[in-house]
Amino acid sequence: MKGDKRKIYFSGAIRAGRNDVQIYHNLILYLKGFGKVLTEFVGDEATREEGEVRLKDSEIHKRDMELLKEADIVVAEVTTPSLGVGYEIGVAVENKKPILCLYRPGNGKLLSAMISGSPSIVVGHYDTIEDAKDIIKKFFKKVGG
Amino acid sequence: MKGDKRKIYFSGAIRAGRNDVQIYHNLILYLKGFGKVLTEFVGDEATREEGEVRLKDSEIHKRDMELLKEADIVVAEVTTPSLGVGYEIGVAVENKKPILCLYRPGNGKLLSAMISGSPSIVVGHYDTIEDAKDIIKKFFKKVGG
Repeated sequence: MKGDKRKIYFSGAIRAGRNDVQIYHNLILYLKGFGKVLTEFVGDEATREEGEVRLKDSEIHKRDMELLKEADIVVAEVTTPSLGVGYEIGVAVENKKPILCLYRPGNGKLLSAMISGSPSIVVGHYDTIEDAKDIIKKFFKKVGG
Repeated sequence: MKGDKRKIYFSGAIRAGRNDVQIYHNLILYLKGFGKVLTEFVGDEATREEGEVRLKDSEIHKRDMELLKEADIVVAEVTTPSLGVGYEIGVAVENKKPILCLYRPGNGKLLSAMISGSPSIVVGHYDTIEDAKDIIKKFFKKVGG
């Protein structure tokens, strides 16, 4: 799979809290070196906790599910507990997508056993963006590309 | 489907926070009138935020996924944003289970568009346990039994 063809679904909290939006933004910038990121709006400061007011919830769900099913790889930042991120990971697992979850210990709640205990998910613990980049690089090396 | 045979998977936050454990407990007691609740531990005060220390995360994941796939119906309380609850709902959607999500507006974050916008999920907004019981009763009437 060529890097410029690979489609990456990035998942991060929106309505559950935008504290980490700058981190999402930096992760997405780095991920763009490995393929096309389908969900750049997740790292956009203009995407607020109130959600995307231009779209109905059913339209957001439809768009995101279409992008998720089109994606070759899913990368989620899971430090902020989020129903939407969990939902997307659950759907991705059932659709047999390779999944990387990035988690900063000590910055939120304990990581859910549904994530840390899933045999279909690679979990990387990080402190700095540089740590996260190393984890991403190794993950893409493993899944091929 | 006979009420005494129907298997119900109840999903609620554990590591994301146990503020609503008493509500989960009351919902589970009521659900027991409609079938067998496979996950009574979710409403047990002895199940702490630190998780179930007797089990490895991989064992918790395996048990919960087996119970979820065995269930006829999924009922989730989604007021506390939770990765695990979202994950279980996502897996349930992909496995075409009937799903009811119960949400108390104003008591947490805005509900994720992945939940409120999903055509596969019935969402009920409630304030009191009596409201929630009415929603549950109507849901079970609709799905049959």
